[in-house]
Amino acid sequence: MSKAELGVGMVGYAFMGAVHSQAWRTVNHVFDLPVGVRLAAIAGRDPVAVKSAAEQHGWAASETDWQALIARDDVQIVDICTPGDTHAAIAIAALAAGKHVICEKPLANSVSEAADMAAAAADAAARGVRSMVAFNYRRVPALAYARSLVAAGRIGTLHHVRAAYQQDWLVDPSAPLTWRMQKERAGSGALGDIAAHIVDAAQFVVGDVLSGVSGLLETFVSSRPLSGGSGLSAASGGAGVGDVTVDDAAVFFGRFAQGGIATFEATRFATGRKNAMQLEIYGSDGGIRFDFERMNELLFFDGSSPDEENGFRRVLVTEPTHPYLGAWWPPGHPLGYEHTFTHELRDFVLAIGSDSDPSPSFADGLQVQKVLEAVSLSASRGSGWVEV
Amino acid sequence: MSKAELGVGMVGYAFMGAVHSQAWRTVNHVFDLPVGVRLAAIAGRDPVAVKSAAEQHGWAASETDWQALIARDDVQIVDICTPGDTHAAIAIAALAAGKHVICEKPLANSVSEAADMAAAAADAAARGVRSMVAFNYRRVPALAYARSLVAAGRIGTLHHVRAAYQQDWLVDPSAPLTWRMQKERAGSGALGDIAAHIVDAAQFVVGDVLSGVSGLLETFVSSRPLSGGSGLSAASGGAGVGDVTVDDAAVFFGRFAQGGIATFEATRFATGRKNAMQLEIYGSDGGIRFDFERMNELLFFDGSSPDEENGFRRVLVTEPTHPYLGAWWPPGHPLGYEHTFTHELRDFVLAIGSDSDPSPSFADGLQVQKVLEAVSLSASRGSGWVEV
Amino acid sequence: MSKAELGVGMVGYAFMGAVHSQAWRTVNHVFDLPVGVRLAAIAGRDPVAVKSAAEQHGWAASETDWQALIARDDVQIVDICTPGDTHAAIAIAALAAGKHVICEKPLANSVSEAADMAAAAADAAARGVRSMVAFNYRRVPALAYARSLVAAGRIGTLHHVRAAYQQDWLVDPSAPLTWRMQKERAGSGALGDIAAHIVDAAQFVVGDVLSGVSGLLETFVSSRPLSGGSGLSAASGGAGVGDVTVDDAAVFFGRFAQGGIATFEATRFATGRKNAMQLEIYGSDGGIRFDFERMNELLFFDGSSPDEENGFRRVLVTEPTHPYLGAWWPPGHPLGYEHTFTHELRDFVLAIGSDSDPSPSFADGLQVQKVLEAVSLSASRGSGWVEV
Amino acid sequence: MSKAELGVGMVGYAFMGAVHSQAWRTVNHVFDLPVGVRLAAIAGRDPVAVKSAAEQHGWAASETDWQALIARDDVQIVDICTPGDTHAAIAIAALAAGKHVICEKPLANSVSEAADMAAAAADAAARGVRSMVAFNYRRVPALAYARSLVAAGRIGTLHHVRAAYQQDWLVDPSAPLTWRMQKERAGSGALGDIAAHIVDAAQFVVGDVLSGVSGLLETFVSSRPLSGGSGLSAASGGAGVGDVTVDDAAVFFGRFAQGGIATFEATRFATGRKNAMQLEIYGSDGGIRFDFERMNELLFFDGSSPDEENGFRRVLVTEPTHPYLGAWWPPGHPLGYEHTFTHELRDFVLAIGSDSDPSPSFADGLQVQKVLEAVSLSASRGSGWVEV
Repeated sequence: MSKAELGVGMVGYAFMGAVHSQAWRTVNHVFDLPVGVRLAAIAGRDPVAVKSAAEQHGWAASETDWQALIARDDVQIVDICTPGDTHAAIAIAALAAGKHVICEKPLANSVSEAADMAAAAADAAARGVRSMVAFNYRRVPALAYARSLVAAGRIGTLHHVRAAYQQDWLVDPSAPLTWRMQKERAGSGALGDIAAHIVDAAQFVVGDVLSGVSGLLETFVSSRPLSGGSGLSAASGGAGVGDVTVDDAAVFFGRFAQGGIATFEATRFATGRKNAMQLEIYGSDGGIRFDFERMNELLFFDGSSPDEENGFRRVLVTEPTHPYLGAWWPPGHPLGYEHTFTHELRDFVLAIGSDSDPSPSFADGLQVQKVLEAVSLSASRGSGWVEV
Repeated sequence: MSKAELGVGMVGYAFMGAVHSQAWRTVNHVFDLPVGVRLAAIAGRDPVAVKSAAEQHGWAASETDWQALIARDDVQIVDICTPGDTHAAIAIAALAAGKHVICEKPLANSVSEAADMAAAAADAAARGVRSMVAFNYRRVPALAYARSLVAAGRIGTLHHVRAAYQQDWLVDPSAPLTWRMQKERAGSGALGDIAAHIVDAAQFVVGDVLSGVSGLLETFVSSRPLSGGSGLSAASGGAGVGDVTVDDAAVFFGRFAQGGIATFEATRFATGRKNAMQLEIYGSDGGIRFDFERMNELLFFDGSSPDEENGFRRVLVTEPTHPYLGAWWPPGHPLGYEHTFTHELRDFVLAIGSDSDPSPSFADGLQVQKVLEAVSLSASRGSGWVEV
Repeated sequence: MSKAELGVGMVGYAFMGAVHSQAWRTVNHVFDLPVGVRLAAIAGRDPVAVKSAAEQHGWAASETDWQALIARDDVQIVDICTPGDTHAAIAIAALAAGKHVICEKPLANSVSEAADMAAAAADAAARGVRSMVAFNYRRVPALAYARSLVAAGRIGTLHHVRAAYQQDWLVDPSAPLTWRMQKERAGSGALGDIAAHIVDAAQFVVGDVLSGVSGLLETFVSSRPLSGGSGLSAASGGAGVGDVTVDDAAVFFGRFAQGGIATFEATRFATGRKNAMQLEIYGSDGGIRFDFERMNELLFFDGSSPDEENGFRRVLVTEPTHPYLGAWWPPGHPLGYEHTFTHELRDFVLAIGSDSDPSPSFADGLQVQKVLEAVSLSASRGSGWVEV
Repeated sequence: MSKAELGVGMVGYAFMGAVHSQAWRTVNHVFDLPVGVRLAAIAGRDPVAVKSAAEQHGWAASETDWQALIARDDVQIVDICTPGDTHAAIAIAALAAGKHVICEKPLANSVSEAADMAAAAADAAARGVRSMVAFNYRRVPALAYARSLVAAGRIGTLHHVRAAYQQDWLVDPSAPLTWRMQKERAGSGALGDIAAHIVDAAQFVVGDVLSGVSGLLETFVSSRPLSGGSGLSAASGGAGVGDVTVDDAAVFFGRFAQGGIATFEATRFATGRKNAMQLEIYGSDGGIRFDFERMNELLFFDGSSPDEENGFRRVLVTEPTHPYLGAWWPPGHPLGYEHTFTHELRDFVLAIGSDSDPSPSFADGLQVQKVLEAVSLSASRGSGWVEV
């Protein structure tokens, strides 16, 4: 192949690292990209674990220091898969070093960090260095297709968004504390981890931003056993019992800038729901419903059909003309979770290859962060309205 | 038959009147009741229309004045199916006259009227005169069964309620104004009409009351054509265009007195959803999901089953041991909307026959009214928290 | 009311009798009929039980002899709800007496009996006496609507019918023997009881008849405990154990006269399925799917929509323009099993009132019987093809 | 890595080749395998196309002759992804050369070829050379889990299998003829292509084989336009119109050797169904339902639960203890079509690495072929019963 090839350096190799690795291994075999990609190196603090992860996931080298990773000549892209408290430092350093950056969501643990990152990204973009925040749900083909339906005016004037992200992995009070339940590492709980996804997805599909919100945060289980371990997911604090310092659930409603109201519900306590990221959109001319547990389906109600024969259509989003689908399998052959990452990387690499800014940008990530912060603020003020 | 027989007098004969008639015609043929019921008379203002309605629906006589109806010797039960602005006067007069009363929801258009009615009901009960507010969704067998599951501890400690009532009959801005969109007749819009149902159903199934709420009301279409007619549903105001003075949609969240958070969404603008009254409940030990569009089904997640083989069970609530089902058809044979009214009347007549107070009482109706008023108040105060 | 009124006499008062009673009580209150109906009398052998049934179900009188019922001057319609071995005698006598007849399915237990009945019906029709076989599933609004879609050419040229009727009430081998498992009373098992429904429904919706079939019958449990009782459902033979002399399940495929192939599966052993009467139809231009467990829904695929936005639409068959729905409740308010009988009686009474022959006729019932007999014959001949 | 590494040589690079490539690229990064795998070379007749395919899919080399591929020293595994008429020659040659073989289904186009292959496989196995037929649907986690439920006795004695494989890609009569519609290349139509999958899946999950069948084959569109192309999928015969010489649809029923009856329906004409591979299994103690369009879900009815709270459970087959899932993502994160191939290769490589015979064997493929041939024979004999 005579194509130019970009070396990728990934920081972090837990759940997100594994999924990103699979996507990096796949993307240039399935999509026709203007530049190739090479899995150059990963970084992690534990030298043995990171080396083993590199071998398992197909990375050519490993580093124990993310700064060393950034400094490598064979790395042109830095992929950040670490907890939120480390995003700002890594991303800003990488951009400064002229490396393209893709960063897991939420962009940061606070608006101020996110603002710093967005500023750095804007600077870098002026130098042709690209950045993207990894809101992978935008790359679910069904949601990308939903966006195209909305953009084409198929639902008309927006009236309602109803979004939820329901999980249940914390409902057992004996589930151990991890960094995801510690404010200093994770920033927030369900809010930053999963409400971030539905806020971004809602704004993306609707094509507008939330202008104000009213919210409530709840922690059902306030302390949990510490695992005492030092693994990737371990909480700080050793053994015994530790405090849960983030929300278990976040509920809020808001208004879109150009009209329409929205409700959001994010929880780790919806017993029986495993990863039910759900989005409903209703406008003057149609309706859309989606549940990630059936990620290959989009329910679409086209209000222009006669009432008598109308109903939500279960569109199997596996047709060759659907977003990303032309590169995959014939109609009716489902894609899975990991494909959303492969699509994300395709769009990122396409943007780099065509000297354009990928989307969602760090500025988009900052905007989501502002929404989350407004929800927190409202919750702390008796749920009173807070402008974003 | 040697059974005693109670004469029923019904006020109003539009949609609710038609459904109640079908239920009154059916209830004593299907259920084994301690007293019989007889369709004695209905009342309505238009002498021709009310006579025709009486004939069609099987009522022995008609009156053009509800006071005359109450005064009839052959009427022992008064069934109120009129708009909310008339409930208090009719109900209080009927109870004073010693007639048992069943009254459509919402109990009244304001907390003060509802309080008067609850006081009158308490007085009457002391004299053996019974009253009930017609929250028919409690009598959906699937929801009655859900209540029994919760009461038996099958979902454990409550964490979440997620409720919605989605309709779309007003999404067309040319749909004419009716009394349901006028504050002076209907009290409120989606809030009193359908949010009332999900508030009552949630509180009923959970077995607790909301202690505080934060809400938002929205009117998407602020004026509508007047039909100019004088039919049962006509708005006041003649021809031309009239103002919509109620909410098209209401969204709110709240807390239950004994713990657990809840979200509610009621709208007449969810394009594609016809009568989607939905309830989800999640607790420490299980989860429940219900959608009235599939009213014979309850989705139940029993957290005590092993994870590997677990999932929401689609329980067809048509087994003989399910609430009300023993009187109907074999397993797998669906019931419909009207049966919820037949069940309601069965419970009402059973209570009368056994000299006990039926449920939900006027006091229960008042409590729902208080929740709705707290939502309105919160909405008018920038969505700030309001105690119920 | 000045309308003429027809008196109804019903024979049999078990499950079918109870459903028919509810439908007779309801039909003239909901539909605008040219003639009224009156629940005149029911007949049953046990004088105490039949009197009690008459009182419960609202019949004015009772008889212990079906011949006496037919002879009554106040009976103009005879409704036959007894086991299949008695249909021919009752129907032929009633028609001879000039009474209109509606007869439960299957029309008879054999082709020869059914042929006699069809001949009697043809004779009677010449004298203005009407008859109908009670294939109530034709009156499920969703299936009546499916018929109208097919008749309008919306599915194009027929390719496939896939039908099933799955129940599980016999899967427990200790379930007692009833008349439904005895050949001399029931004629056949799943074949005549439930396969009859899907054969009729398929032929009705498609608008064609089966021209040949190949089949297999199976009896999974060959003997069962006798209840020893003498109730309505009791088997002949007293106490102990009795032989099951009918099929527990019938599977077959066939060809339609004008093209298209079909598969059928009827069973009382599909553990977990309660009353899953299912029909799928695929043609050159569209597809239709139906499951009676969700009887208010029709899934419709309109092949003329663009592939990208296409999918089965879940049509809630509750719009006022859907068959029978104009007389009932607003969109989104489900009907139930019993309504199919109310619709059937409406059509029957409308036909009588307009001096026309109702449908399905006894000749239609005979044709279904011929299909069932062809399946039995094929099953007895190593599943070889049998022309109908 | 010090692990031994096996070189893979793949023949064919159309749809199946692309999926297999993705699976080969992925399998050793996700699963812990005793030996590594290397994408050594692919073979195809067109030198330019095969070279391009090798580059795209990540194969180190290409050959224009499958014999040359087999002869390569760096190839220890031969993966056959060509049409059925070539399977026997390639597989037998590869096995003779001591190469492990995985061969796409159907194993061959006739029983005699399949028998030759099974004999060659048995010989090879004696020499430690392994072979497997690629019935990938066995590796859908939900179906592998269904097998484990059945094997554990959870459905009890088998009564019913109801299987279907519904596609609609040929419903348009102007869809061009490809080799899949030509008997000399494909052997048969829907029968060998997709009925093969449901026969294998049914036998696998049930753990038994069909002992006899009765069937019907149908060709709805008997001639189609020739594309005139020479691409991978082109039909023989040049331009103009060509005859469809295979079945468009196959329907059949059968008996399992140890009891239980089964129905099968495979079609390319089910308008609206894209790739609906469906399986229902009912036994004395439970029921199972599956639809590949929702491949991450298994519906399970456990008959031992109390009737009142029972129903089909929608098990999301994404728990770490489910088959293959431990290596993938957290609960609720769906897998897709391609993962079934990754799982298949994992099992194949594990068997090679542990010196054991993988399953399904060529003998299993032969048995499926015998069932398909019995269906064809029955269809040609008026659907009379044919022993397998």
